[in-house]
Amino acid sequence: MNLVVDIGNTLVKFALFEAGKLVRQGAAESPREEDFTELLRGARAARAIVSSTRGEMPAVEALVRHHADRVVDFTPETPVPIGNAYRTPETLGRDRLAAAVGAATLYAGRNTLIVDVGTAVTLDVVSAEGVFLGGCISPGVAMRFRALHDYTAALPLCGAAEATGLVGRTTGEAIRFGVMNSLRFEIEGYIARIEAQFEDLCVIFTGGDAKFFAKRIKNTIFANCNLVFCGLNRILEYNASEEHLG
Amino acid sequence: MNLVVDIGNTLVKFALFEAGKLVRQGAAESPREEDFTELLRGARAARAIVSSTRGEMPAVEALVRHHADRVVDFTPETPVPIGNAYRTPETLGRDRLAAAVGAATLYAGRNTLIVDVGTAVTLDVVSAEGVFLGGCISPGVAMRFRALHDYTAALPLCGAAEATGLVGRTTGEAIRFGVMNSLRFEIEGYIARIEAQFEDLCVIFTGGDAKFFAKRIKNTIFANCNLVFCGLNRILEYNASEEHLG
Repeated sequence: MNLVVDIGNTLVKFALFEAGKLVRQGAAESPREEDFTELLRGARAARAIVSSTRGEMPAVEALVRHHADRVVDFTPETPVPIGNAYRTPETLGRDRLAAAVGAATLYAGRNTLIVDVGTAVTLDVVSAEGVFLGGCISPGVAMRFRALHDYTAALPLCGAAEATGLVGRTTGEAIRFGVMNSLRFEIEGYIARIEAQFEDLCVIFTGGDAKFFAKRIKNTIFANCNLVFCGLNRILEYNASEEHLG
Repeated sequence: MNLVVDIGNTLVKFALFEAGKLVRQGAAESPREEDFTELLRGARAARAIVSSTRGEMPAVEALVRHHADRVVDFTPETPVPIGNAYRTPETLGRDRLAAAVGAATLYAGRNTLIVDVGTAVTLDVVSAEGVFLGGCISPGVAMRFRALHDYTAALPLCGAAEATGLVGRTTGEAIRFGVMNSLRFEIEGYIARIEAQFEDLCVIFTGGDAKFFAKRIKNTIFANCNLVFCGLNRILEYNASEEHLG
C-alpha cells in the first residue's frame, strides 16, 4: 500500500494506492489523524510520498510518518522517470512535475498538454520522448474572482456559476461571465496553438475546477482528476525500485 | 474649456478639452493643485465633469471645483446620450458607461465592442442603435501578476514583458507568458464570438495596457486611449446643452 500526499496551495490531498491502483482519496485544509486512519482503514502503508507546493508542512509530514514505514519527500533532487528541460527545476512546482510524470506514464509515447485548473492554471507540455518542456501559469477560477474584489474599490466577490453567456447585463453576471470566459478562451486558444506545433497531441484536463471547462471545450480528449496522484505514485515506485539506478 | 476627470482604480486621469478636442492630459495617483494648474495653464475651465469608479474622492472634487465654474458629478442619475440595457445601472462602472458614450459618439451607427485593458479588463458591447448592452469583467494585467504572488505560497511577483512565447522554461517565463497569453487568447476568443453575433462590428481598444494586445491581435480595428475622456466630455456637453431635455 502506498500513501500519496499532495500539499497544494488550497488543500492537502491524500490518496491510497494498492497494486498501482488508486483505491481511496480525501482532501482537507489541515488533515487530522482521523483523515489518515480513515483513508488507510487502520492499516499501515509500506511507503509514502509527500509533495508540497507551499514549502514544508511539518504537521502533515509527522502524520504521514506515523502511518507509513518509509517516506519519500519529493524535492527537486528526487529522481523522476522523465526528462526535464526546465531551466529552473528548483522553482518548478512539484505538482506540475508530478502531473507530467502521470501524463508520461498514462499516455506514454505521445505529446501531451496538461491543463491543470487549480488555485493557479498551469498549461504544461510533455514531449512524446518523455521530457517535461515547460509551460504557462495564470490565475485560477477562485483567484480571478477574489482579485477583482480585493484589488478594486467597488466590485463584489462573485463565485463560479454554471450559466454562461457573452454579454452580462448585471455587474454580477459581467464578472461571472468574464471570469469563466477568460479561462475558457485562454485554454481554447492555448490548445489550438500547441496542437499546431505538436503532432498527435493528447490534451489532459486535471485539477479541482477542470470539469466546467473540460465539458465546454470542444477538443478535450481526456479528463483525469488524479493525474498528480498517479504521477506521485509512479515517482514513489520508481524510487523504491532499482529503476532509477539503471 | 472643459475639464474632464476620470478617477480609476489605480490612477486619477484628467484632460482638458477645447472646442471638442482633447488638448492636454495627465494622470497621478493623488493629483495636486500643480497638476491642475499645469493642465489648465493658469486658466479656468467653464465646465468640468468628475467620474469615479472608487466612490467619492472629496480631495479631488475640491480641486476640480477650485478650477472650474460648473461641475457635473457623473452619477447613475446623470442623463447620457445613449440607451442603457444594463439591469443594475447603479453598479455599472462609470468608466464603462463613459467609454460606451465615447464609442457611440466616435463610431455612431455601428455595433462596437470596447476592449478596455485597465486595472480590470472590461469587454462591452454598444449596439448600432446606440444602446449599451453590457459585457464582461475579468482581471487586468497587473492584477493577474499580483494575484499569482499574493494568493500562492511560492510564486514570485512578475511584471509584463514584451517577449512572448507558449512554453516557458523558467518559472518567471511561465508566469509572464501565462498572464500575457491568458489575456490575449481571452480577448481574441471574445472578439471572434461577438463578431459572429453582431454585424459590421467595430472593435476599439482602450486602457493603459491596451497597446500590447492591440498590436498582437489580428482583427484590431481601432485603438483609442482617450475613449473614456471623449465619452465624459460628450456627457458634459450633453448636460450643458438643452439636448437631454428634448
